[in-house]
Formats: sequence, structure tokens, C-alpha cells
Amino acid sequence: MRIALAQLNLHVGNFDHNIQLMLDALSRAKRAGADLVLFPELSVCGYPARDLLLSESFVNRCLHTVEQIAGHCNGIAAVVGGPARNTGKPGKKLYNSAFLLFDGKVQFVYNKGLLPTYDVFNEYRYFEPATSFQTFDFGGQRLALTVCEDIWNIGEHPMYPINPPDMLQSHKPTVMLNISASPFAWNHYTERMRILSATARKYRLPLFSANLVGGQTDLLFDGGSAVFNSRGEMIDSLPQFTEDLCVYDLQEVETATAQPIPSIPGGTGKCALIRDAIVMGIRDYFRKTGIKKAIVGLSGGVDSAVTVALAVEALGKENVWAVLLPGPHSSDHSVTDAVFLAERLGIRYDTISINDTVVSMEKSLQQHFKDTESGIAEENLQARARAVILMALSNKFGHMLLNTSNKSEAAVGYSTLYGDMCGGLSVLGDVYKSDVYGIARLINKEREVIPESTMTKPPSAELKPGQKDSDTLPEYEILDAVLYRFLDEQKDAETIIGEGFDRAMVVKTLKMISGSEYKRYQTPPILRISPKCLGVGREMPLDADYKTICEPVKTVSRTN
Amino acid sequence: MRIALAQLNLHVGNFDHNIQLMLDALSRAKRAGADLVLFPELSVCGYPARDLLLSESFVNRCLHTVEQIAGHCNGIAAVVGGPARNTGKPGKKLYNSAFLLFDGKVQFVYNKGLLPTYDVFNEYRYFEPATSFQTFDFGGQRLALTVCEDIWNIGEHPMYPINPPDMLQSHKPTVMLNISASPFAWNHYTERMRILSATARKYRLPLFSANLVGGQTDLLFDGGSAVFNSRGEMIDSLPQFTEDLCVYDLQEVETATAQPIPSIPGGTGKCALIRDAIVMGIRDYFRKTGIKKAIVGLSGGVDSAVTVALAVEALGKENVWAVLLPGPHSSDHSVTDAVFLAERLGIRYDTISINDTVVSMEKSLQQHFKDTESGIAEENLQARARAVILMALSNKFGHMLLNTSNKSEAAVGYSTLYGDMCGGLSVLGDVYKSDVYGIARLINKEREVIPESTMTKPPSAELKPGQKDSDTLPEYEILDAVLYRFLDEQKDAETIIGEGFDRAMVVKTLKMISGSEYKRYQTPPILRISPKCLGVGREMPLDADYKTICEPVKTVSRTN
Repeated sequence: MRIALAQLNLHVGNFDHNIQLMLDALSRAKRAGADLVLFPELSVCGYPARDLLLSESFVNRCLHTVEQIAGHCNGIAAVVGGPARNTGKPGKKLYNSAFLLFDGKVQFVYNKGLLPTYDVFNEYRYFEPATSFQTFDFGGQRLALTVCEDIWNIGEHPMYPINPPDMLQSHKPTVMLNISASPFAWNHYTERMRILSATARKYRLPLFSANLVGGQTDLLFDGGSAVFNSRGEMIDSLPQFTEDLCVYDLQEVETATAQPIPSIPGGTGKCALIRDAIVMGIRDYFRKTGIKKAIVGLSGGVDSAVTVALAVEALGKENVWAVLLPGPHSSDHSVTDAVFLAERLGIRYDTISINDTVVSMEKSLQQHFKDTESGIAEENLQARARAVILMALSNKFGHMLLNTSNKSEAAVGYSTLYGDMCGGLSVLGDVYKSDVYGIARLINKEREVIPESTMTKPPSAELKPGQKDSDTLPEYEILDAVLYRFLDEQKDAETIIGEGFDRAMVVKTLKMISGSEYKRYQTPPILRISPKCLGVGREMPLDADYKTICEPVKTVSRTN
Repeated sequence: MRIALAQLNLHVGNFDHNIQLMLDALSRAKRAGADLVLFPELSVCGYPARDLLLSESFVNRCLHTVEQIAGHCNGIAAVVGGPARNTGKPGKKLYNSAFLLFDGKVQFVYNKGLLPTYDVFNEYRYFEPATSFQTFDFGGQRLALTVCEDIWNIGEHPMYPINPPDMLQSHKPTVMLNISASPFAWNHYTERMRILSATARKYRLPLFSANLVGGQTDLLFDGGSAVFNSRGEMIDSLPQFTEDLCVYDLQEVETATAQPIPSIPGGTGKCALIRDAIVMGIRDYFRKTGIKKAIVGLSGGVDSAVTVALAVEALGKENVWAVLLPGPHSSDHSVTDAVFLAERLGIRYDTISINDTVVSMEKSLQQHFKDTESGIAEENLQARARAVILMALSNKFGHMLLNTSNKSEAAVGYSTLYGDMCGGLSVLGDVYKSDVYGIARLINKEREVIPESTMTKPPSAELKPGQKDSDTLPEYEILDAVLYRFLDEQKDAETIIGEGFDRAMVVKTLKMISGSEYKRYQTPPILRISPKCLGVGREMPLDADYKTICEPVKTVSRTN
């Protein structure tokens, strides 16, 4: 039997697009002699469809699309993902299902048993988990179909009380198939491959896994569909961040040369991987929203420099417009650095001073501000004046404003709500400042695109004379180390302090995080590249008392 | 046996506050001769604690608090809500539990079986559902403890495959107890009472239910804790929107006079109920975030008028600051209406013209805008200039900006992102324009607070000469009827059209809804008063193709 993996970039709700992609893949697979094609999880409607799944007409259209694809499955079979109705049984109205199609119709439906509802996942909102699982005989093989999370419950501390592959095992399958929508994080590919490997090895089955590829707003899917032999060795993995179709002979898989699982795929390091993911994310968000052009405010700093460079990679230099918005405290080098960058990228750029606008605003506030000391309010006026100009250009000419905040400043709230926090998409909101520099260095690898002085000058918001980020924040190297431990690794304050970080600095940092939850509530969608993004997948209360989290008292717990 | 219901306004993460409230209620109940006190669901930590529940130190503090309360349970028992650890068994790390405390310690732990994960709920993100359920003997009674949703699975189309009260029934309990955090919607009290009634009747058990009260950011809890006899008759219900403690003799409940379940509690209608909920919501959000004062931009229109009047009810007139921000297209009556209102309310108000700021902005954009027609971009400049001024005052003096958008305009995106969409809290974002007028009439019941002309003039954003909302939108009466059916009742386009609404108008309206998802993604938290709020509880993709939802094709479904 020959099995094809169809790694496609599907679009939520765009049934015409999705069916065309899938029928095209079906034809190509057939021409390449495939007997069966695997498509990603929920492929007919795209993933994540979120509350569109609560619409009857949306679900009808999904089911209709499954039927349409089935109508083309002659001489070839397909496994497509889509919602199935739970009719008759108690529970939620839908299952998250894999439909096995051939001879022009649906032959078998497998319902997903393990519904991830952590981090970015919310599947139990829509689907009933299946509790019994059947194999299906096709082409002389006994297929153990599974959907994504179904094979992820094999660790030492299982998150679910049941384990579908164990239950399928009793039917003596000969091959395992997995369709998935497993999102990207810079360290997730390796974890995914290890789970696939462990599953193939545990059940002594060759394993074929088709994963979704493409950006879906903030969630990025990297593809990397893969094939493992029954000893758990990786035989092949499709590329990341691009569509692909590959056909494998089931017998040959067992004898083919195995490949090592890389710790960072691509071999060019973490920042290169993040860069590729972000470029795909920008491109797909624009394509899927139908917006062609981006606008970015260039400050002369590294964040906006990297944002605009990645936008150019994603959208082409003709589609990116840079606007320099010097204000009362902008340094000369800010402007020259920004101009250098825009010229190196070959993009249109304009300069619009915010000085007069800021003066007007200050004048209208003069009476109220007269006996106060200049501070955050005055600084924010500048950031907001810039946002108003950028949004006016966006509204007038239809460019989407890209947000340039990085994860370090977003985490501690070192940013102006309705100022530099504006934008239709946050490009670097999940990238720590240290990694922003890492990406900048990659961009500059062949020639100086981002001026050296942008890389070497101390980071500054330039909202008051001589201001430096380090006046307010710990040095980014330290800050990022604390943030990474607290956010990505989910270590608590006491553990982080125990690793040698200064207690007062840690407490201050964690207080800044909780003190800015209200700002991040209104953040644009953030391209997710880490295990814990500050956007989707992190749900914090806004009016809670965070003392227990931020100010650890060693002796608080007598229980447990 | 005498059972007390302690309807408390708990604060997420504020353990010191919560324990003080609970110990105080325990003392009062004891003095009143109670044998057992019921506290709301997850009372030790507050509800919803969201991802704070993923923190080990937070959970430790919860468990410690349970122990602390247990230490005070001498001569009286308590049922408190809190997370319990799932140790040893596969599944999520926590249960959502009810702890029965007496003789100074935890005597019994009941774990919730049905975890709501729809609309505003996300409990399966944190908790493992229990699958077996025990009663507990106390004070000569056999207690069937349940937690909130556990008793909600008795309808004709059960959402969960199991039904905990059925399983408890086999142990022959003599009384049922329910601790809950069931949030407010204007029509939800009645639904909740009918479920409680049906449960008591079905199992022939007296039923005591303690519900949470208070605002928790966007989620409002109305209390209305209640007692039913074993025939399903309501014996008593505690007031809404306020804390209360009441003690009942179990025997007397069976013979006490029953009360009818009102279709709208309070007897003063839907808008009165919404008003009370919102006032509680404003008050609690300020109290729990520690912010004392509010600032509101007064436009002379009904939305900002109602917002500021409700803010005065919630915070007191000395804590509300109104700012009039007339612009180039503001009419005279806008200013006089706003002044009238501010003076009637007795609040501080100031007038700050945005004209010079808008002129400055336009001047700086002149070169780029010169060959274009004046439109949305220019209109938005005015809305954003207002926001910048309001936010500057907010940042300078520490007042929280209240957002004044209503649900009708928020739904169709008739609003300016970073303009009138700004604010720390959306007061009316879940209230349709028609109901905003309803609340305005209530506010004016005893004397004219909101000027009559505000109520009678055609709604206008006043961002261009002679502009009226109805230039762009259907009349609000029609618009609200369509929105209510689509959003709150979740009817699809074809059904709404089938009810007699104009097809083109419905399609246009639904397209406006999906076309503004990206704006609402960045909305402030919205006080939730309806079954389907546009904030929490509604999760829509931003880059999806919405055609299937917005442009119905009657013949699309051959399947199903």
C-alpha cells in the first residue's frame, strides 16, 4: 500500500479554497500511485474554526464538503478531518473526526478521544470525546486511525484517563495513521517527533502523520508531517512552513534509512526557525484577510527594524510602507538609522513629525496639567500621537498596521496602550528582546540591512530626554531569563529566586507582569512562536489579587 | 438541622479578604444556630481564577486556606469550594471540589463531575471531571453534595454522558446541597431557578443552593441563592447583587409557604435588572482593581449619558469626572445636553476642545491625504484625538476611562478602534441601543437627569456634517432585532430572513459583524448581562472566510 501525506495550508471557513487544495492533492497523489491520502485534522473547515463550529450552517457546509471530496475518491482513498454530528448520544453535539473516504462515499468515521483544552486549545468547547475506538480494514491493512492528541497520552503523567492507541491495539492494527493540527513553537517540532517515535515504537506499528501547515491569525502551524517505521525510527519528515505532498510505500518504510530527530529542525538555530515561522505568519494573515499592504512605524530601534524586515520578506518590498515619526525626544541617529534601513530594504518611506500634534495636545491639556510633574502621561502622548497618524494612514490607504512590540516589554507592560500597542498583528510579541537581536543578526548576515548602530545603542523609548529602557527595567539579558522561567517554563517565583536571581528584582518583575494584564487584554493578535505566548493560550484575570504569585512567602504551604 | 446559605462577594486571589469574609459568615451563622454553612463554588480563591489555577503556589494557598477555615469549624460545619489535587489518577492535576469541614478538619471532599466549557466557561482547561460520587452522613442527614453544573444535566438533550445526581440517588440522600458560581444574564435567574426546582422535584429532596455574588471583571454574579422543598417549590431566594446570609431549618422548609419563580426577578423589568447588574459590575471592578475614580467622555448622546449616570450610582458623584470634547462637527446641543447631565448628576466636568489637535493632525497628514476624498480616516482622527486626551487625563490622575460603546454598534463595528473603543471597562458593551434607551428612561423616572433632547434626537457620531447613525446602519429597532436573533439566540441567517427580515439588510448586517471581529479582538472587558456577550464567551477567528455564515445559500446542505 502506498500512503500519501498531504500537508496543506487550509483556510478557516474558505470551503471553496480548501476543497480545491484537497482535490488537487488527491489527483496528484493518485498520479503518483498512492492508495490513500492523509489530510490534516479538521481539514475541510480549517483549524481553529472556533465558534464558527457552533453554527449549524457552518457544520452543514463541513459535512457537505466531506461528501464532495468523497465523490472524488474513486481508485484512491482519503482520510479527511471534519466535525461529525453526535446524534442520539448524550454529550456535545459534535465529534472531531477523521472520515475515511473511498468508492465515492464515507466508509468509516473515527472520532477523536482526547480533546486538548490547555494552552491555546479549547476543543472540549465544541466536541464530545469518543470513548470507544475501532480499526478499519483497507487495502489489505488494518488501519488504526487517530486524530492528533489521541497519541499524546503516553507520558508518565497521562493527562487523560484513557489512551486510544491502547484501545485500538486490541484490534491488532498493522499501521497507524494520525491526522493533526499541531501548532508551532520553536521547541515543539522535536517534542512532536519524539511522541510520534515513541508511539510507533510502543505499538510496533509504522506511523504516518499529516500535519497542518500555515498561519491562522496568531496560531502558526509548521507542517513537518512525518513517517516512522515500526521501530520508532523517523524515515522522513516533510519540510516546515510550506505545503508538500509525499507518497510512501508502506513496505519500503520498514527498510528505509532512518533519520535522526534534530533538536532544532533546519540546523540553523532557534532564531532562524522563529524567523521562518514569523514570515509565514505575516504572509498568511495578510493573504487570509485579503489585505495586501503593511504599514510600520520605524523608530530607529531594533524592534521596528526587525518587524519591517520580516514584513518585506513576507509581503515583498513593494507592499511595505515605513513611516518615521520623529518627536520631541527623538535622537538624530533614530532618523538616520531608520532611513538607512528603509533604503537598504528598498521600501517606500515617509517622515511625518509628531511635534505639532504633541504641542497641540499638550496645549489643550495645559490647564489640567499645569501643577503636575511631567511623567508617563506626557510620554504616552507621544506614543499615541504616532499611533493616530499611523492608523489614519492605515484607514486611508488600507494598509494593515504592524505592531512592533517585543515579548519582554509586552510582558512587563513597558508599552503604551493605544500607542505603540496598536496594530492589526503583533509580529514580535512572542519574541524576547534577546531573540529580536538574534533575528536582527541573521537578517544582517549577508549585508548590513539593519544599521549596526541600531544593534549597539542602548534600547530607548525616546519619550523623554536621555531615556534608556534600563532606567526602568532590568537589563534585557536578566529580564528575559526571568521572564522565560516564569512564563515559558512556568516556574514559580521561589524557584526562580532559588536559581540565583535577585529576590527584589524577581518580585518587581512579576508585579510588573500582573500589573499590566489589563493592557495585554487589548493587545493585537500575537504570532505565537513559543510554548507560552502572551496572547492566545494565556488567560489571566484582570481584577485579581496577584500577591500569592508575585510575592512568595516560603512558609505559606503547610498542606499538600 | 439548620443550614445557612452564605452568599458572598469573593475576590479572585485575595485570600486574606476571602477568609475574613468566610470566617465572619461562619461566626454569624453559628450565632444564628446553623449546623452547616454553604459557601459558593471555588470560594477560597474566587471565581474565575483562570490561569492562576495553573500556579502551584496559588493552589497551595487555596489548600492552605481550606485548612485554615476548617480550623474554625468547631460546633459548626462548612462546605467550601476550592481546587483539590488529583493525585495518582490519570487526568488533569486538579478537581473543582466541595470540601466538607467540621471538627477542625476536612471530613469529606466531593469532586465536580460536569465541567462547563461553553460560552464563558472553560473549566475543563483546569479540572478533571469526577466520574464517581458519594454522599456523606452528617447531623442525622445524608448529604448529596453537588457543585453548580452537576445538577444542570437534566434536560432532554443532556450535554454530558453522565448525571451526578442520578448516581448520588442510589445512596439514598435526604437533602441535596449545591454550591455554585452561576453568572448573571438578564434571563438567567429564571432558568437557574427552574433547574433547581426540577432537580428538587425529580429527586424528591429539599435543595439548598449557595451562589456567588459580585462582579469579577466582565463576569457578573447575581447571587439569588435559593432553597427548594422536595416538591420542587421555591421556599426562599436571597436577593440579587448583594451579599447575604440566611439560615433555614431543614424540617421547616418542607412546610413553609412556597413562592412563585418570577420571569424577571425584582418585578421592575429587564432594563432595571440590567441596570442593577451593571452598577454592581462597575463598583466591583473598581474596588477589586483598587481604582477609585472614573473618567468618561461625554458626547451629548445617550450612551455616554447612561454610562456616566451608572458610574455615579456605582462610585458616587465625587468619583466620576466627565470631560466634554467638542470637535469640528459637534452640534451645540451636544455640549448643552452634556452640561445639563453633568450638572444634574452633580459631577465635575471640564470641556477640552479637540479642534486644534485635529487640525495639527490633519496638517501633518495633508501631504499624504491631498488627493483623497475625506472619509473614515478623517472621522477616526476626531474619535482618536478624544481618546488621546481622555487617556492622558487617565494616566495623569489615575482615573479609569470608562468605555461608552453599546452592543449594537460594537456588533457591527460602528466604532473607532483606539478611538471610542478605548477604555478600561466597557459599561454598555453588552446592552443593545434599544435597551440603553430603556435604562435612560429608568434613570429619568423621578426627574430629568438625562436631557430629553438626548433621548429624542437621532443618534449621531457627529464626525462629519449632518451625520446620522441611520445613514450607515439600519434603524436601531430593526438592527437590534436582527442582532438579538443572530447573537443571543444563535439563529442562522436563513432562519432570521425566514422571520420576515429583509434579506439584503440581514446579509449586510452579518457581514458587518464578521468584518469587525478584528476590532472587537481589542475591546476592553465588557460587563456581561446577556446570554451572549461580544467579549468573554465569544471566540471567533479573525482571518476566516465568513461567507457560509453571512451569505446563506438555501441549498447548500445535502447531508445532515
